[in-house]
Amino acid sequence: MLNEKMRKLGTKRSTIRELFEYGKSLRRERGDDAVFDYSLGNPSVAPPKKVDEVLTKLIKDCSPTLLHGYTSAEGDIEVRSRIADYIRTSFGANADPSLIYMTAGAAAALSAVLGAVVTEGESVITPAPYFPEYKVFVEACGANLVPVLTRADFRPDIDAIAKAIDKTTAAIIINSPNNPTGVVYPKEDIAALAGLLKDKSEEFGKTIYLISDEPYRELVYDGIEVPFVPNFYKNTVVCYSYSKSLSIPGDRIGYAFVSPDMADADTVFRTICGAGRALGYVCAPSLLQRLVAECCGISSDIGIYKKNRDTLYSALTEYGYEMARPDGAFYLFVRSLCPDAKEFSLAARKYGLLLVPSDDFGCPGYVRIAYCQSPDMIERSLIAFRMLAEEFKNTL
Amino acid sequence: MLNEKMRKLGTKRSTIRELFEYGKSLRRERGDDAVFDYSLGNPSVAPPKKVDEVLTKLIKDCSPTLLHGYTSAEGDIEVRSRIADYIRTSFGANADPSLIYMTAGAAAALSAVLGAVVTEGESVITPAPYFPEYKVFVEACGANLVPVLTRADFRPDIDAIAKAIDKTTAAIIINSPNNPTGVVYPKEDIAALAGLLKDKSEEFGKTIYLISDEPYRELVYDGIEVPFVPNFYKNTVVCYSYSKSLSIPGDRIGYAFVSPDMADADTVFRTICGAGRALGYVCAPSLLQRLVAECCGISSDIGIYKKNRDTLYSALTEYGYEMARPDGAFYLFVRSLCPDAKEFSLAARKYGLLLVPSDDFGCPGYVRIAYCQSPDMIERSLIAFRMLAEEFKNTL
Repeated sequence: MLNEKMRKLGTKRSTIRELFEYGKSLRRERGDDAVFDYSLGNPSVAPPKKVDEVLTKLIKDCSPTLLHGYTSAEGDIEVRSRIADYIRTSFGANADPSLIYMTAGAAAALSAVLGAVVTEGESVITPAPYFPEYKVFVEACGANLVPVLTRADFRPDIDAIAKAIDKTTAAIIINSPNNPTGVVYPKEDIAALAGLLKDKSEEFGKTIYLISDEPYRELVYDGIEVPFVPNFYKNTVVCYSYSKSLSIPGDRIGYAFVSPDMADADTVFRTICGAGRALGYVCAPSLLQRLVAECCGISSDIGIYKKNRDTLYSALTEYGYEMARPDGAFYLFVRSLCPDAKEFSLAARKYGLLLVPSDDFGCPGYVRIAYCQSPDMIERSLIAFRMLAEEFKNTL
Repeated sequence: MLNEKMRKLGTKRSTIRELFEYGKSLRRERGDDAVFDYSLGNPSVAPPKKVDEVLTKLIKDCSPTLLHGYTSAEGDIEVRSRIADYIRTSFGANADPSLIYMTAGAAAALSAVLGAVVTEGESVITPAPYFPEYKVFVEACGANLVPVLTRADFRPDIDAIAKAIDKTTAAIIINSPNNPTGVVYPKEDIAALAGLLKDKSEEFGKTIYLISDEPYRELVYDGIEVPFVPNFYKNTVVCYSYSKSLSIPGDRIGYAFVSPDMADADTVFRTICGAGRALGYVCAPSLLQRLVAECCGISSDIGIYKKNRDTLYSALTEYGYEMARPDGAFYLFVRSLCPDAKEFSLAARKYGLLLVPSDDFGCPGYVRIAYCQSPDMIERSLIAFRMLAEEFKNTL
């Protein structure tokens, strides 16, 4: 008997993935130049040269049985030490290699962490709009995702979150710099959230965990600072991925970081490892673990993303689109020009524009634009955005 | 509230992994030469040269954004086509690229397949001794693993399996060449099992799936043939890994193959993809997908494993140990020299020998010897095996 829940998950693909697949067929039909695929956060900015240099060097110099062999399930201890050093130096935070769990990207980290700190029937809060897979991962634990709408500027609404917390609340997931809005939560928001979680943990007599999903940490513009969440709230697990910072999303490498200041840090860490084991993760890819150890603090050319943001933000604003000006990540969250964002996204396809309708992000009426594309494609797409805006101006 | 089941899984590590970690500390203490680590199926035989050649070439010639970018969740279609071609040509079986799901190794494949074809409260049968993680993966689905002891020669006991099948049976997992016994199931066993599953599926009015876990497919000696299971039973999913054939277990790459002859093959396939999604698998590592597409049908130097098997089998038999002579994989399953295999394994540590007690394999009274080690280590370990045998001869 097939598992009905999994059948649905596999049959109804994520809107983002579906649009990505549609884009591939559209390219075959119309040619590469006529498709402006803003669907997927798949960086078109090349990885830093160092990525391929390190890989080539590892392949050349490292013993192949070590390089391609199993590491400990938690990851290679030297790799984890390098990452702990980086966290200590960069964020002034406590970090312990034995509390870092190397994972196949942030999705694997989130799945393992949720599997550890959430039990059946509990709930997990997240500010909405939110990354749609959160719902999938939370429901896989038999738990319930509770989206809480952000303020109009897409910063978390602390009062609304306070009201949403109840005795079933196991954890809160935040994601800053944010997908899909590009907003970076300032210090005062993190501090307020930390205060709230401390109070509520006391009130309900249990730890409410803060899960900080940070694949976009390095992707910020104009010198904006991203607060390191464990410095504000000790019961934090950071889920990190090198997908975006190093432009290697297909390689699947990241980690879960448990703050050494956390109550029962060791037990929480081992529980995360246990959950990863039950999910079928044996170890994070060994070759890629060794790669990222050499690339701490390095990132792709963020200048390109900044240029893309500036180009799109100024052009789209001129054409009459409304959006928050993002400080980080590589997304614009643009108000749909008609009430139904799905209809708007369908209309955009005519012009070769692939925009993700926001319904699955828990915040209808917008489209997400992933601007991690080549500046050239972005320039060429502007006319399509203008025509789309004009179509809707005329029909309104 | 921490998930208690996951805490246990993370705290009580698999016996194999625990022994592997112990081995690392023992090496630091006594030196590399004094430890004979037979715990982990971590090939010490180097990957074929082609592995590093292909990787270097991919890094040099391939567009980095393609090479390190997301593939479709199911895997790159060209990679899947190459694998389908290989299956068609090598096994004379039907194969369809759109029914091949690239995974992070066989463990990920098994987890996704079980998540798809098993629902809560059902059960999964496997011949015992069996690979201990089967229990973890099956229980993660809220299902129950039902081990059925093999015959004395470690071939499946079809009559006993027939008796064990009931209305809760969702699937049977087989593993040939077998971990931990090294036995290869002959055609007549697969045919008998296929007949049984066909009858029982009819009797219970539902499909009982056959999950064929085949990481050791290429590791067979003396020209022994490994039957391709879907040619015998159409409702088969093959879980394959390149870990052992290419000696790249740390890289985590493999696939799940759904037979196109299966009833509702497309739906089963999509359900497997849905389960993979819920487990946090975004796509199998892109770089490694492209690697294995170039390495179909290639394997490490099996001659070394055969030599190891012959050396160990003849020496250990001479020292008075009892075991089945294995035709494949790289394991010897040796009868413990005292009733409690754990006690025996502890005694072996004195001589630097790390042998896995068989209790977790669902068949007490044996130890597993993973002989995927350097022939040099194996030669040097013989004296330790002899001393161990003598210690027990003297106490009996």
